[in-house]
Order: sequence, then C-alpha cells, then structure tokens
Amino acid sequence: MKIAVLPGDGIGTEIVAEAVKVLNALALPLEMETALVGGVAYDAHGHPLPEATLKLAKEADAVLFGAVGDWKYDKLERQFRPEQAILGLRKNLGLFANFRPAICYEQLVGASSLKPELIAGLDILIIRELTGDIYFGQPRGRRIATDGHFPGAEEAFDTMRYSRPEIERIAHVAFQAAQKRNKRVTSVDKNNVLETSQLWKDVMVEVGQQYPDVELDHMLVDNAAMQLVKAPKKFDVLVTGNMFGDILSDEASMLTGSIGMLPSASLNSSNQGLYEPSHGSAPDIAGKGIANPLATILSAAMMLRFSLNQEAAAQRIEAAVQKVLAQGYRTADIYSEGTQRVSTKEMGDAVLKAL
Amino acid sequence: MKIAVLPGDGIGTEIVAEAVKVLNALALPLEMETALVGGVAYDAHGHPLPEATLKLAKEADAVLFGAVGDWKYDKLERQFRPEQAILGLRKNLGLFANFRPAICYEQLVGASSLKPELIAGLDILIIRELTGDIYFGQPRGRRIATDGHFPGAEEAFDTMRYSRPEIERIAHVAFQAAQKRNKRVTSVDKNNVLETSQLWKDVMVEVGQQYPDVELDHMLVDNAAMQLVKAPKKFDVLVTGNMFGDILSDEASMLTGSIGMLPSASLNSSNQGLYEPSHGSAPDIAGKGIANPLATILSAAMMLRFSLNQEAAAQRIEAAVQKVLAQGYRTADIYSEGTQRVSTKEMGDAVLKAL
Ligand SMILES: CC(C)[C@H](C(=O)O)[C@@H](O)C(=O)O
Ligand SMILES: CC(C)[C@H](C(=O)O)[C@@H](O)C(=O)O
Repeated sequence: MKIAVLPGDGIGTEIVAEAVKVLNALALPLEMETALVGGVAYDAHGHPLPEATLKLAKEADAVLFGAVGDWKYDKLERQFRPEQAILGLRKNLGLFANFRPAICYEQLVGASSLKPELIAGLDILIIRELTGDIYFGQPRGRRIATDGHFPGAEEAFDTMRYSRPEIERIAHVAFQAAQKRNKRVTSVDKNNVLETSQLWKDVMVEVGQQYPDVELDHMLVDNAAMQLVKAPKKFDVLVTGNMFGDILSDEASMLTGSIGMLPSASLNSSNQGLYEPSHGSAPDIAGKGIANPLATILSAAMMLRFSLNQEAAAQRIEAAVQKVLAQGYRTADIYSEGTQRVSTKEMGDAVLKAL
Repeated sequence: MKIAVLPGDGIGTEIVAEAVKVLNALALPLEMETALVGGVAYDAHGHPLPEATLKLAKEADAVLFGAVGDWKYDKLERQFRPEQAILGLRKNLGLFANFRPAICYEQLVGASSLKPELIAGLDILIIRELTGDIYFGQPRGRRIATDGHFPGAEEAFDTMRYSRPEIERIAHVAFQAAQKRNKRVTSVDKNNVLETSQLWKDVMVEVGQQYPDVELDHMLVDNAAMQLVKAPKKFDVLVTGNMFGDILSDEASMLTGSIGMLPSASLNSSNQGLYEPSHGSAPDIAGKGIANPLATILSAAMMLRFSLNQEAAAQRIEAAVQKVLAQGYRTADIYSEGTQRVSTKEMGDAVLKAL
C-alpha cells in the first residue's frame, strides 16, 4: 500500500510528521514517500505542483496532505500560487467526492461560538462535489462586454456548469453515505436563480428514487447558511456543489469549535483519495510546535478506511484520539482551564501511547 | 413623495400594514399606492410582477415591500414563481446596491445562537451588489456538453460576470458607507479560483485609493463564512457580489438572533429604492397575527432616510422602535421570559404610541 506524503506549507510539516508517526506504529505494510507541494514546491521547482509530485500522487493508493499557502505567495500570478496545487491534484486524480464531517467533540463543546445546547452532539457530514462547477468550468477570462449593463467595458467571467452524470455520481455517494448514517440527505442549491441548480435538483430527485430508505429534502443555499447557525443538528448528510460546498463546509466546521480536529477525504471513482485536515496552513503559528495534529491524524484514519481498506486500523486511531481527549490533553487551539496544554509533538506521542 | 406599497405573500400583508400605519402617523406628504406582487399577483393576474405593479414601482420614489413566496407556488415554472417578482424589480429599477445591516439589539442578545460575548454590540453592514453576477449573467441554460468530464451528456450552465463599472459603482457605495461608520471595508471574493473575483479585487483596490481614510482588506468567501461565526464584530462594512452576498448576508442576519428586526434597502443610482425586511414570507405563521413588524417598520425608516430625504422622520421611527424594545414588548419570535408578548398589531400600536 503506497502513500504519497505531501506536507506542504506552514504547519503542514509539523502536523503530517505526527500522522506519519502514528501510521508507522500500526505495523501495516505501508510504503510512504514524501514530496514537495505548494509554496515550498514553488520555491524549489518553480511550480506549486511539480511533475514529480503529481506522478507520485497518481501512482499512490492515497495522498496524505498537510496544508498549503502563505502570505508571501499572495503576490504571485494565480497559476503559481500554492492553492493551485490542491486544485491540480483534485482535477488530475479526478477526486470528485469530498467528505467533510462536522463533528462537535463532547469535550470541546465549550470551544464553539454557538451555545452548548445547539452544538453538543453535532455530527453532520457535508459531501461536496469537487471537480466541477464554476471551479473548473470553461470558458472563463476577461474580455470587452458586448451586452449587459455596460457594453464596451472590460469584464471578467466564469462559467458554472454541471452535467447530469457529474451530479448523478455525487448523488449516489451522498445517498450511500446516508444509508450508513441517519438516512437523511439535504441537497443544497440555488434553483430559484440558477439553471445549474435546477438540473442539480432534478437529478437529485431522480437518483433519490433508487434509495427509498433515504429521505431527501432540498434547501436553498442562503437558507442552508442560516439553518447551520440556527439548528445545525437538524442536518444528517448535506450534499452540494463545489462552490456552495466550499462556503458551507467551512462555515459548518467553524461552528463546531473543533476545526483543529476535523479531517477530510477527497475520493475518485476507484477510491483513490487525498486526505487532509479541514483547517489551513496557519502561517502565523508555523514552526512553533503548537499546531493541533489531530485533524491530520484523523485524516490518516479516514485514509485507512476509504482507500486502504483497513477499517480496524482506522478505528484504532479514532479510539486513540478519543482517549487522549478524555485524558485531558489539549493543544493551544482547544485548550481550556483544567486541561493539560501540550505541543504538537506531545499530542502525537499521546496518541501513539493510546494506540 | 410617492410610495409604492407591495405587501406580497404570507405575513407580508400583516407586517406592511403596521409600517403603513407608522408612516401615516408622521404627517408627511406621503402618497401611498398599493399593488399586488408575488404569489397573490400570480393568482390574480397570471404573473408575479404584473405590468401595472412594475409601472407603479418605477414611477414611485420608493417601494415598500413585504415578502413573497409560499410553498404552494413551488411547482410552478421558474418564471412564474413569486421570487421572480423581486428579481424583476431589482433588474427593472436598476437596484444595484443592497444594504443589509446585521445588528444585534442589546435586549435580544439572548436570542442569538452565538454566545453573548461574541455577539453583544454587533453592528456590521453588508453591502451586496444586486443586479449583476451569476444572477443575471447570460448565457445560461441547458445543452449537450461538448467538453468537460462527460462530453455528450446533458448539462446546465450559468455565467458569472462583472464588468469594471459595475464593480466601481458598488465599491464607491461601500467606501462612502464606511466613511460614515468605522472606516473599514472588507471586500469578499474568491480570487484564488475565479476570474470574476480577480477583477473584483483589482477594482476594489483601485477605487480604494480614492478613499485614503478608509482601510480596505480582502477576504476569501469561505473564510468570511467562518469569520462571521468566529468573530463577527471584527467586520465593519463587508462588500461583496450578488451570489456571495446572498449567502453571507443571510448567515450574518441569522447570527444576530434578531432577524425579525433587520431591515434592508436596495438602491439605484438616483436613490430610488426598494425597502424590505431581511426575513421572508413565513407562510407557516401567515394570518395568525403574530409576525414581527419591526423589520418592516425599520425598513420604512431606511426609506425615509435614503430615498425620501427625511432623516428626522427616520430617526423618530428608529427611536420609537428602541423605546418599545426597552418597554419590554416582544412578538413571539423574540419573546423571552420576563418580557411582554404582543401581536403584530399590538407591536405596531406600541411603536405608534412611542412616536
Ligand atoms: C484553496 C482553495 C482553492 C480551496 C477551495 O476553494 O476548494 C479551499 O478553500 C478548500 O476548500 O479546500
Ligand atoms: C428570492 C431570492 C431570489 C433572493 C435572492 O437570492 O437574491 C433572496 O434570497 C434575497 O436574498 O433577497
């Protein structure tokens, strides 16, 4: 089983190191190879996703990804910016199904912005389509407008688009995920305005008929942004397109107060996947040894489950993380009075011990 | 001064009646004419925005709007659905600048999902561009894909687009609004992915140079969705496009816990405007006489300020609303123990008395 390890920028190196330590302790036949990605890859090779890194990722069964991005690359032309690496990996590996659990850990309920009663016990799964929509839709660019409010003026444009099979495959992913959970899917779109959303909704309804055991409802994206704040626990599986999913999944993970704890998985149709924490590269705390490695360690668990077919090992890791939380270990981001503040490395060691 | 009064559907009639009552009490030379809009207009005339209603709105100095929409119209073809009326009014009147204050009223801090310390004293202004973006961009429709992941498949598409002058004019609105507040503008886009956002950001920077007294920063939309949850008070004026503004303004207003209190204004370049509560038509409570009329009454105050140049009258209304809150009057949506629960009409009467 081959794993491409791509730590990336900022706290990426520190958190991935802890996840690798945990994976190594499992005594599984895992072959891990590390490569540069993001800003550090641009610095070394002039591109955030060098050929060699892409090749390694393609050949691996799974990619363990840290994070990319740093303010110092903000001025680069877009194609060279660190984030392009992640878009390139999604596109080239066909990673169309993004899983973003939003879970509120019992011990961390106090860290949420929301009142405890609204958030305690939260466990929702956001499934975001990841290779279509306005992220990749052609045509796009700049031109002189020939119609609209100001014909003759410079304008920029992008194309939102989804085809029927693209929606079908993510719908199946969502319904099947719901079958293993509380059997409810909320499909989020903006069908009162967008043609793309109308097709999205139509296809969701059609595919839903193949899953009579799953309840399907539809919600407009503006309302979904409100309901996540008002009553997040009402959701089970929320499925949506790439653009709306970007916004709603970040909103939902921040609501939990546990963003430093939340893993993510991005899969293609052969279950090859990229696994990364839901949080970013946090350049402000990089190198200080204080980042929370648990989201990355839990991403490694997801990797074992989804891409490497090692459910038992995945559960061992998840149980170990539960245990260190119960033992009171906390990195700075989730620290509260009465718990024990630990460094990135100490947290990794604690998980190792709990294994 | 001529006002087109468009109560619309659901609770629209009830809440607009109270606002009209308050306006009538001001002893100003206001000429008000009522017309049908939304589902009730479709029922009567076969269209959610009948010609006569549009004509009335165009000729008026301002439109006082209730709300549109009801589940019973969900099955209609999109062009006949109630929401099309609001899109039609925005487009035909050129209402490009939408003002959505997100304010947490001191007395209602407990009604927020957020912890009191995060939300008490919140006062942010979201300025949303309202006549451009993917809402109105052509081309859009369905077709057979010729490229992308599934050439040959049916696909739907929409066009996001912004021209330089469209961005310039909303930028000026935002900077000028910030000059009257805390002199900070946060421009929200998705420039790491979208061409449209890159132009948006470029133009914001350019226009910002004409306002050296205002501090400009930029935030990605996914991060903005998180920061609104994490630290909403860090914002002053948030300016963004039509699509992102739809999502973020709803998220922000729900965060306050006071959505039944939040007015909105949509202006064109001659300060003609449409004024409506930020909440919707709430068909579930329509006809029960329990809806909160304060957002509509406060929208009428915004109308007096922005379109009718009656600042003193606007302030009288706002002071009266503050007073009834201080007196402890509460409609059901904002009721809490120890306050006095009142009906829609009683709340209107209380404001009238406080005037
Ligand atoms: C870095 C950026 C392009 C990316 C996205 O928008 O998809 C990120 O926000 C994410 O959600 O993984
Ligand atoms: C009804 C709908 C078309 C509208 C919008 O999306 O703009 C509404 O959500 C709003 O924000 O006023």
